[in-house]
Amino acid sequence: MAKLQPRTLSGFMELLPSQQIQFDRMLAIIRQSFSLYGFTPLDTPLIEASEVLLAKGGGETEKQIYRFTKGDSDLSLRFDLTVPLAKYVAMNYSKLAFPFRRFQIGKVYRGERAQRGRFREFYQADIDVIGDGKLDISNEAEIPSIIYRTFTALGLKRFRICVNNRKILNGFYAMLGLTEQSGDIMRTVDKLDKIGAETVAAILTGDLGISQKNTTEILRFISISGSNTQVLAALEEYQGRNETFDQGLDELGTVVKHLAAFGVPESHFAVDLAIARGLDYYTGTVYETAMLDHPEIGSICSGGRYDNLAEYYTEKQLPGVGISIGLTRLFFVLEDQGYLNEELNTAPADVLILPMTDDLGPAIELATSLRQSEIRAQVYSEQKKFKQKMSYADKLGVPYTILLGEDEISQGKVSLKDMVSGGQKLLSKDEAIAEIVKMQGADDALTPILDREE
Amino acid sequence: MAKLQPRTLSGFMELLPSQQIQFDRMLAIIRQSFSLYGFTPLDTPLIEASEVLLAKGGGETEKQIYRFTKGDSDLSLRFDLTVPLAKYVAMNYSKLAFPFRRFQIGKVYRGERAQRGRFREFYQADIDVIGDGKLDISNEAEIPSIIYRTFTALGLKRFRICVNNRKILNGFYAMLGLTEQSGDIMRTVDKLDKIGAETVAAILTGDLGISQKNTTEILRFISISGSNTQVLAALEEYQGRNETFDQGLDELGTVVKHLAAFGVPESHFAVDLAIARGLDYYTGTVYETAMLDHPEIGSICSGGRYDNLAEYYTEKQLPGVGISIGLTRLFFVLEDQGYLNEELNTAPADVLILPMTDDLGPAIELATSLRQSEIRAQVYSEQKKFKQKMSYADKLGVPYTILLGEDEISQGKVSLKDMVSGGQKLLSKDEAIAEIVKMQGADDALTPILDREE
Repeated sequence: MAKLQPRTLSGFMELLPSQQIQFDRMLAIIRQSFSLYGFTPLDTPLIEASEVLLAKGGGETEKQIYRFTKGDSDLSLRFDLTVPLAKYVAMNYSKLAFPFRRFQIGKVYRGERAQRGRFREFYQADIDVIGDGKLDISNEAEIPSIIYRTFTALGLKRFRICVNNRKILNGFYAMLGLTEQSGDIMRTVDKLDKIGAETVAAILTGDLGISQKNTTEILRFISISGSNTQVLAALEEYQGRNETFDQGLDELGTVVKHLAAFGVPESHFAVDLAIARGLDYYTGTVYETAMLDHPEIGSICSGGRYDNLAEYYTEKQLPGVGISIGLTRLFFVLEDQGYLNEELNTAPADVLILPMTDDLGPAIELATSLRQSEIRAQVYSEQKKFKQKMSYADKLGVPYTILLGEDEISQGKVSLKDMVSGGQKLLSKDEAIAEIVKMQGADDALTPILDREE
Repeated sequence: MAKLQPRTLSGFMELLPSQQIQFDRMLAIIRQSFSLYGFTPLDTPLIEASEVLLAKGGGETEKQIYRFTKGDSDLSLRFDLTVPLAKYVAMNYSKLAFPFRRFQIGKVYRGERAQRGRFREFYQADIDVIGDGKLDISNEAEIPSIIYRTFTALGLKRFRICVNNRKILNGFYAMLGLTEQSGDIMRTVDKLDKIGAETVAAILTGDLGISQKNTTEILRFISISGSNTQVLAALEEYQGRNETFDQGLDELGTVVKHLAAFGVPESHFAVDLAIARGLDYYTGTVYETAMLDHPEIGSICSGGRYDNLAEYYTEKQLPGVGISIGLTRLFFVLEDQGYLNEELNTAPADVLILPMTDDLGPAIELATSLRQSEIRAQVYSEQKKFKQKMSYADKLGVPYTILLGEDEISQGKVSLKDMVSGGQKLLSKDEAIAEIVKMQGADDALTPILDREE
């Protein structure tokens, strides 16, 4: 029979077993971290009716969507987790308790041009808090602590959460009489890190026709930097000239004030007036997260406050705040840059039992018993030579093997071999269990990311 | 603005928060159970090239597939997890250690006619062991123990794993000179439970033109029942007449023999000669799992031994054995039949902190501290009346609230309110943590399914 070349589509990440265990470990930590903040898990369909998913319509996103018909139905694969959330909340409004805090970790689809490190199928890990009519500013203050805890639990050390407030920006541009152009200006200013101040200034005075005076004001404003206290102090000089600005500054002050109570060290947080988040969607606090040693990869966790989640589906005013981690790309970058912790046990089992007798009964009983102690145990039952059995254990990367021959069985013992040190000990079953459980504990304490201290 | 009716597609399960937590708990238990047997997690793309996914071609499945084009690509959504596994193993053959043991829990897509309890998007939870050239029979013996452990861990009690061996069936039909018709016969016999012995006999003698004598033989054969020992003894009477039969009987004997070592009680296991699994795919042991009180829902976990996983992609002979749980349908049935354990804590948080002061600082600090003890804590920070705060706590279903007012703060204490008993205690933070952690432990010991003992 002619064989078909097996292949995985370009732009679709498919991991080898040991990588997958690393990835799953990251998933589990993120899930646990989001849960600790009282977010409830959701799992919405991958496919939605196109009219529902594309209610907002237009834009770059629409071109990238996987859209197709099945029977009479016009269907699309979700391209983010926010639109399905909006649908869900509008649909289940009366059954939910507000503020509604949900997390969702799932795959989304965008038919982008394939290139290295860009994916067409990728995981997003989102949290959102949705209020009914109102939502207190303290929710915006809590977000940096969730970002901080999550990345710290993953093992990342050298990162910084950058925060701004759209009201400060909107208020500032209103002071200059530039409200109409503020969208264009912010989109330009957002590129500051990439294109530099001179090019930004050239675009502002050139393409956007902003006066030299105002351009100078804008550049001076977005270059305000220093400690959080210094930035807030510099912003206070603009106070009293615009109500929106004053409100934004008040909100930013609240976010900064709560940092310590939330356990976020100042080293991992910065007010950064250059951040606007390109979307018109955001209306208050906005967040980006930078890896200090890899600014080139851009923000690894972003989001912000919005005023109305589900305006296409309901008259209800549903303000919210949310962030999203692009997990597939993050994992790609971490692996690419050597951040994955190689000390982690990524074998499918904690111990491989090698029966040295024809009767597999004792090996199976031992495995059953180890599993009752939550030890991941596999019996190697193929009829192969000892050397091949050990070579299998090596290829799996299991931390332990147990040799079980006539001698061990008659003594009621097991030979536990540490595959790292090569040492082998004759132990009682309980002693072997204790040693493996100890290894599990040490492994659980490892983080999937290994970042050097500064 | 005109609003669009938010809706979820028919045949797509979308759960409310408390249901989702139940479902996720089941997922976590299944994942853990599979891991304990040394299966490694895989996560393959939802979308594959149609030529790859449909290499086998034809059949009912193809009509149900979600197939579409994007740019120049002919794409399909996966309809099971077996074909992607075959592709994966063929593609990564040189990088995998054989036997290769993998589990995958993921959504698959079939555009079936929508009806109650049938889903177009549904989770499958699969395990497979793939050998390179050969695979020892003990792998087939291990499968019932995995099924037993998994359902027991979920809380199911009244179920039975039914096992047969295709070689016994093939050998038996060869004895009667009915090899050519054995496929048709087995498909008919497979319906025994649904249509009864008389109708089966009528189809055999009628549509299939089997002689009266052979029909009597067949009915006698498939009605062999009793304890495993009795069934094996009855089968021994056919021994020595056909080599395939003898090999199948030997394999079945091995599977039964290892049951005790694997910890499977005889009460939960039965040799059942009526089981064939409709597919030509299977070549050795086959499995079905029945809920004793709900035979009408059919098998909740099925699979078997096959000789060649990836023949469409590679010349390598890759025999394997695997089973699959249709999780979405199982969850639907369990909920529908009242099997879900209502005692389970399905709230998004273990404790809701209600700050009774304007300054949220102390409440936030307390939440941060609780989270460090792995307690899921939420601060209720909306400015609402006390009654509304308590009503929110009720709606979330949190087991505890903590009231934190001036008095508590000045004494360095918290008021912990048990939302079930209604009791309220003034405790130190550490005492409150201890009580909540104790509740978590009790909750962890609960199973998501609550099945009555027989």
